[in-house]
Amino acid sequence: MSSAHDVIEVITTKRDRGALSDSQIDWVVDAYTRGAVADEQMSALAMAILLNGMDRREIARWTGAMIASGERMDFSSLSRPTSDKHSTGGVGDKITLPLAPLVAACGVAVPQLSGRGLGHTGGTLDKLEAIPGWRASLSNEEMLAQLESVGAVICAAGDGLAPADKKLYALRDVTGTVEAIPLIASSIMSKKIAEGTGALVLDVKVGSGAFMKSVERARELAETMVALGTDAGVRTVALLTDMSTPLGRTAGNAIEVAESVEVLAGGGPADVVELTVALAREMLLAAGVDDVDPADRLADGSAMDVWRAMISAQGGDPDAPLPIAREQHVVAAPRSGTLTRLDAMAVGLAAWRLGAGRERKEDPVQAGAGVVWHARPGDRVEEGAPLFTLLTDTPERFDRALAALEGGYDVGDGPFDPSPLVIDRIA
Amino acid sequence: MSSAHDVIEVITTKRDRGALSDSQIDWVVDAYTRGAVADEQMSALAMAILLNGMDRREIARWTGAMIASGERMDFSSLSRPTSDKHSTGGVGDKITLPLAPLVAACGVAVPQLSGRGLGHTGGTLDKLEAIPGWRASLSNEEMLAQLESVGAVICAAGDGLAPADKKLYALRDVTGTVEAIPLIASSIMSKKIAEGTGALVLDVKVGSGAFMKSVERARELAETMVALGTDAGVRTVALLTDMSTPLGRTAGNAIEVAESVEVLAGGGPADVVELTVALAREMLLAAGVDDVDPADRLADGSAMDVWRAMISAQGGDPDAPLPIAREQHVVAAPRSGTLTRLDAMAVGLAAWRLGAGRERKEDPVQAGAGVVWHARPGDRVEEGAPLFTLLTDTPERFDRALAALEGGYDVGDGPFDPSPLVIDRIA
Repeated sequence: MSSAHDVIEVITTKRDRGALSDSQIDWVVDAYTRGAVADEQMSALAMAILLNGMDRREIARWTGAMIASGERMDFSSLSRPTSDKHSTGGVGDKITLPLAPLVAACGVAVPQLSGRGLGHTGGTLDKLEAIPGWRASLSNEEMLAQLESVGAVICAAGDGLAPADKKLYALRDVTGTVEAIPLIASSIMSKKIAEGTGALVLDVKVGSGAFMKSVERARELAETMVALGTDAGVRTVALLTDMSTPLGRTAGNAIEVAESVEVLAGGGPADVVELTVALAREMLLAAGVDDVDPADRLADGSAMDVWRAMISAQGGDPDAPLPIAREQHVVAAPRSGTLTRLDAMAVGLAAWRLGAGRERKEDPVQAGAGVVWHARPGDRVEEGAPLFTLLTDTPERFDRALAALEGGYDVGDGPFDPSPLVIDRIA
Repeated sequence: MSSAHDVIEVITTKRDRGALSDSQIDWVVDAYTRGAVADEQMSALAMAILLNGMDRREIARWTGAMIASGERMDFSSLSRPTSDKHSTGGVGDKITLPLAPLVAACGVAVPQLSGRGLGHTGGTLDKLEAIPGWRASLSNEEMLAQLESVGAVICAAGDGLAPADKKLYALRDVTGTVEAIPLIASSIMSKKIAEGTGALVLDVKVGSGAFMKSVERARELAETMVALGTDAGVRTVALLTDMSTPLGRTAGNAIEVAESVEVLAGGGPADVVELTVALAREMLLAAGVDDVDPADRLADGSAMDVWRAMISAQGGDPDAPLPIAREQHVVAAPRSGTLTRLDAMAVGLAAWRLGAGRERKEDPVQAGAGVVWHARPGDRVEEGAPLFTLLTDTPERFDRALAALEGGYDVGDGPFDPSPLVIDRIA
């Protein structure tokens, strides 16, 4: 063939444990995006990468090739520094909602490009779309204008950013090649680097409800992404945080918005407040701001002011009542004692099955669906008192949601040893 | 999904070094043949199999599933036992041509389903099609009738045998997943078992001109195939034979037919005679015949009689002059001495580039093209005397063929230590 490389040569290099050259990587990512390399060829290469790995140079080059497949945004015209956050996804993870306005209230602009949920972890855009009138799609000009005027924007990533990643992610999803750290890291970082943020904080989740089940794998992913960001000139830091227990007291869409508003009002569950403030501090530090304490901006109401402005700027009514599920089902505590375990995967699966998430990309989500838990691990519960409230518009979903919760929690007598929320920091 | 298995579950089982269950294997081979599993999913699975392997049970089940995808032939109505041979492919490997009639002359029927060549190793059908009038396609009824009347048939495999293998082989060819021993073994053996032969001798080639470059890999492939055949009730034995040097004195189509006829006439190159007789003995033994010496049947002309009948039965004229290339180019020996090395890959590549083989499946081959070498390793050569004759209808091909031969042979003074033709026997 007349092209610079032969795809078989690229595949067999990685298959035989070789390192791909810069030119092989540039060629294969571009050729795949153009359709000159077929899906069945890229999936064989993805499996070889998953099983044989890539070194730091290969991952950086691969990420660069995916960035080069599309447009790059530029926030250098803004009057303040930018800082963004990315979470690898967890149950009840509404942190972006209070975090973006909080950091903006501290003087750093937050250009948060988010996604919709697929599977048991919710999507930030799905949650915000529970707010009447709010829209996720902004043009680049609208985004830039809102960053200047409000300081925070949470919106859908446009189709122009890293199109190679979009095509490759869809392929990996159907070929059993999602779980490759080089490919996960380059997928996340290609979008964040192309987005043009000056600083980035990664919230890498570990535990039953997370994509990474072990601290070792989470650390490897975090280190890979921090190296990628640093090499690309983005000040990048990662926190490893616990996702064996879901965050806060709610998993769903409207109910997570309500919980986020509680946090912005100075209340809310202690773990959500703790993680929001911890991530805000990291985002500010990475952006070079060390003279503001974000906890003060929660207390003085300025983060709430930014929230209201941010929702209004995207057509949402911050005062409109949130949608409420038509049906509810209460699960009572089976005995009195201490809630010693609440499994994130069980809760996430239950919320998903109630309609808070989608099974196929094209499915709608229910704004009101989800799970509320009335106790957190360490809390005292009384036999017969409500432990969970399940919410849905479609009550035929209760049975499968209850099955998901089964075995997902323990009530006992013994002492409770809480695990730390922030496990490690990687910079 | 409603099917028995989810393809992601099958892929990730092998990706994570698990063994596929019988039911997973049956399902995925059938679903791929039906089109319910996509090419990009099967290629990811093939790469995982290549890198993580399959155990003996998995390979046997995979082979069985490929057999079950199509029809099975049945030779049990024949009045004599059947025995077949398969070669993994080499340069100048015309052995099937004298071998099939020789074994038939010894009282054992040979149902040889062959293929066309792709790449630098020639195809048996391409060689026979150099004979004016000869046709490769027979119906199952014609094949059975010829086996009864003549005792030997060499023809194209019908589309009905192991269609799963045809589809999978085409996929592996473009996805860098050809070199997986479980998949090579199951591809070869599914066709041979479905073909219905009672006994099978495998000629597994080792060396520069062969698919397997090391004795270890060749032995692993041979042992895998012998186990598969034995488990399926086919008496199977394998010879590991040398393919660092090409067989005989010719590589091409018409010129290899002529060399085969020399062997049937009681002459021909010693190595071709040696391997033909060794494989004939194995085929007879595997079929339970131990009272005939095939060397006698070469000497008394009875093998030649079967050859003539076999060619005539398929429309060929055994007396017709064979096609001759329009152009020839002679390479003279660069010095006097002993030919100490003749590389099979170099010769195979030169013959291929002269037009004896094809680059794409749909290409024609030139009947007269190829390479004749006038000395074999160990022979004395004189400076300026012809060492190679290159043959083609299209003289613009000479340059690239000469480039392929460059460095592919040595003429020296030292003592020559011949390597054995038959390296090992695996039963």
